[in-house]
Amino acid sequence: MQATPPPATATAPSTVTAPSAANRLRLRRLGIDTYQEPVLYMHRDCPICHSEGFEARSRVELRLNGYTIVATLNVVSGDFLSADEAGLSEAAWRLLHARPGEEITLHHPAPLESLSHVRAKVYGRRLGQAAIDAVIADVAAGRYSDLQLAAFVTACAGDHLDMDETIALTRAMVNVGERMHWGEGLVMDKHCVGGLPGNRTTMIIVPIIAACGLRMPKTSSRAITSPAGTADTMETLAPVDLDVTQIRRVVDRTGGCIVWGGAVRLSPADDILIRVERPLDLDSQGQLVASVLSKKAAAGATHVLIDMPVGLTAKVRSAHAAKLLGQQLEQVGRALGMQVRVVQTDGVAPVGRGIGPALEARDVLAVLRRETRAPADLALRALQLAGQILEFGGAAPAGSGLAQATAVLADGRAWQKFQEICEAQGGLREPPVATHQQAVPARHNGTVIAIDNRRLARIAKLAGAPSAACAGIDMNVQLGTVVERGQPLFTLHAATPGELAYALEYATSQAEAVHVMEEA
Amino acid sequence: MQATPPPATATAPSTVTAPSAANRLRLRRLGIDTYQEPVLYMHRDCPICHSEGFEARSRVELRLNGYTIVATLNVVSGDFLSADEAGLSEAAWRLLHARPGEEITLHHPAPLESLSHVRAKVYGRRLGQAAIDAVIADVAAGRYSDLQLAAFVTACAGDHLDMDETIALTRAMVNVGERMHWGEGLVMDKHCVGGLPGNRTTMIIVPIIAACGLRMPKTSSRAITSPAGTADTMETLAPVDLDVTQIRRVVDRTGGCIVWGGAVRLSPADDILIRVERPLDLDSQGQLVASVLSKKAAAGATHVLIDMPVGLTAKVRSAHAAKLLGQQLEQVGRALGMQVRVVQTDGVAPVGRGIGPALEARDVLAVLRRETRAPADLALRALQLAGQILEFGGAAPAGSGLAQATAVLADGRAWQKFQEICEAQGGLREPPVATHQQAVPARHNGTVIAIDNRRLARIAKLAGAPSAACAGIDMNVQLGTVVERGQPLFTLHAATPGELAYALEYATSQAEAVHVMEEA
Repeated sequence: MQATPPPATATAPSTVTAPSAANRLRLRRLGIDTYQEPVLYMHRDCPICHSEGFEARSRVELRLNGYTIVATLNVVSGDFLSADEAGLSEAAWRLLHARPGEEITLHHPAPLESLSHVRAKVYGRRLGQAAIDAVIADVAAGRYSDLQLAAFVTACAGDHLDMDETIALTRAMVNVGERMHWGEGLVMDKHCVGGLPGNRTTMIIVPIIAACGLRMPKTSSRAITSPAGTADTMETLAPVDLDVTQIRRVVDRTGGCIVWGGAVRLSPADDILIRVERPLDLDSQGQLVASVLSKKAAAGATHVLIDMPVGLTAKVRSAHAAKLLGQQLEQVGRALGMQVRVVQTDGVAPVGRGIGPALEARDVLAVLRRETRAPADLALRALQLAGQILEFGGAAPAGSGLAQATAVLADGRAWQKFQEICEAQGGLREPPVATHQQAVPARHNGTVIAIDNRRLARIAKLAGAPSAACAGIDMNVQLGTVVERGQPLFTLHAATPGELAYALEYATSQAEAVHVMEEA
Repeated sequence: MQATPPPATATAPSTVTAPSAANRLRLRRLGIDTYQEPVLYMHRDCPICHSEGFEARSRVELRLNGYTIVATLNVVSGDFLSADEAGLSEAAWRLLHARPGEEITLHHPAPLESLSHVRAKVYGRRLGQAAIDAVIADVAAGRYSDLQLAAFVTACAGDHLDMDETIALTRAMVNVGERMHWGEGLVMDKHCVGGLPGNRTTMIIVPIIAACGLRMPKTSSRAITSPAGTADTMETLAPVDLDVTQIRRVVDRTGGCIVWGGAVRLSPADDILIRVERPLDLDSQGQLVASVLSKKAAAGATHVLIDMPVGLTAKVRSAHAAKLLGQQLEQVGRALGMQVRVVQTDGVAPVGRGIGPALEARDVLAVLRRETRAPADLALRALQLAGQILEFGGAAPAGSGLAQATAVLADGRAWQKFQEICEAQGGLREPPVATHQQAVPARHNGTVIAIDNRRLARIAKLAGAPSAACAGIDMNVQLGTVVERGQPLFTLHAATPGELAYALEYATSQAEAVHVMEEA
């Protein structure tokens, strides 16, 4: 659909003749975080609103500097926006690479033909590759509103995707993004389904694998709702925001990397679907499989080890469920040309001692440097997974992977390789240490019988994690520790006194974050 | 979940002790129309944001003056909102009956337990009355975000609701709103499925039925996306914004009424579901049936005539589809204690001459006053439907309804009754006439071979309809009219020269709104 010619009237600001000049407005950054949804704010009295027939919740195509997005319109009658301005939400601002005062062009978006496939799915029909390609291309281009995304996610949830559709969805998601190619030879990768707090095994596994001669170019994510993602933690030790060329150079030189995946646009449709999947909390095995494997296929992996923590409070609750999901991952992986192996691990307890980017990095460094304070649980999980990957990639005979991984860590080769990788990524640095720290003491003698990971995560975020890299929580106890009144349960780390106070206030009011059973 | 105690820190504006005083912010009306979704805007630096862990897209419970709603949070970093203010979208402002500067209380909303039923539906399970009651109670209370509403609508679309579920949904929707009771005797009602432009038969039918001694308390809607709803059109002749007591008085006195349904909160969940159904454009016969019949049951109807226009561009496209939908409406109606009768009508062409509140009212008045300029098609449709209702309600013998309705219109009793109804509603008035009018002429000799209702509706809205009641389009031709170059095709009506110019500009560029085939 084309934009219509401009009105030439008394109330229009000026009589314009070229259609291209008609639908232009001066940009204004409103600084409104709508989560990821691009929102356009136009004043009720804006002539373009009238002449184009735009209304609240209209979808409007925005063009600027060669970028095109579709945003949802909110109509403003307040006085913080004038009639010749277009306000943008933060997501829209970022996507358009906008600068204040630039002129933006507004159009009616083309009809969203691929919604007919979403409707077909709602009616229970099977979708072929072409239909799924069309939907995912529109999703990746940002042409679906959040409501339309919710409809697609719902239509696919509840096991409504069969194996062929799951494969087609995974392929479509790979095809709309960038794809890394590594030439001949194996490319190892790993993924953890439904991560555990502090489970930073990646930063220990990659140098072990690379030190044993296998390639492992690892892209990781930043925190979305947690106090730290692997990319946040790694960033306290070395730059992670590398482009494709830089990543290739690091991997060519060292055999591995640990970088932020968001900078390389692998499976971008996945990032968009996730933003509605989370609040809906709808289980969809097909979408989970497509999400995980599209990222891996786009990253060029040939061998993917899946770490699947199983536990009553983990994402996967039983060994049986883990087996079914594992089979689906292996089958879809095969269709995409990847070998996938699934390892069930213990999903009951958090891993390591630190919560927050720098504190988790400190734990990782302690393991790599073989310090006595290194958390044994973190080291053991990393070694077990690394051993599996070594066997999977043929670098260790069956049954000897764990021993080999342990040797590579113990003799310092892993630490040596980690330093090489950090140098190649831009230079190893020491993680920052918080200037403000305060212990939260036990209120009485007793035994730690429960630790609430969700409450601890909340406290770490109140202390400033992950945006303040030094902020978070350092655990002084673990399950089963016997404590005396006044003994520290955990220590808060913060960059400012205000954040320390917030976190302390909340921690004090939430005594059950670390539950100490009083002795009888 | 309870709100947590306030932080007492250096950066908090003051040290507060009572939890009830903790989460209070001064209200600010931002004048942002987010369509119907309640949105809360809080500054990134607001202490409550930090202490409660609220983030973009968090759901936040707002309490004010005894009203409680749940809103979606947008976090603001711009300078148009300060850290101690809470901005509200227009929908949130209305729902809370807010006034500037009042203090609002913020809480974490209780977990939305009924979402488990939505998930069950996604998994293909049948929902019982209790489950559907729980969902609809939360929907009506505004506890579902738009994303969650979209998931529910999608899960129910595509014939996923069986007859029992449709009945349960209709019951649940009736039960969460107000319900009107009329005591003994019949209460007639009508509804048009997928209306035609200009199809204002209601305003002719109600006085005919009431004049024949049957009760017909009719609640109608305002325009949502069209240039006029029946309530908008009626409002140019008499007040329509009546409360339940006033409606009862009008009906007791005259036997009928034509009022705005939005003022009486009949089936409020329907209004909420519609706001996501429209942009998704997902066909759901069960939801359509529940939507129509819940409004009728809540209005206290005993007999409902459904006007079902059938045509290739109408909502119902074939006689077969009409029959299936009709059977479902009759069956669900019966379960709710109503008799439902469906009449298939011609759904090909628009009805009458005017488009826009006052111009449509003029057509209605012309029919009631038996003026020679009265549009015959509007009169005939109204008489046929009125005749059916008279027979349905036992006020006319089978086969004689049309004749009786025609007699009541012809001898002035319908016009007399319409004046009574208007007087009882607050006084009959003449519809306004636009001060700015301009004809859009034919560009060449020929025959009118097509009229694009959607483009005409757009033009009428650009001219200012429905908010400017006098604005709209007056058709000077119809399908088949032979015109000469320069002869007016339609006349634009507007309240301001600016709107007239906008509409004219668009109408001139969209020659195919009324397509004149040139003679060879």
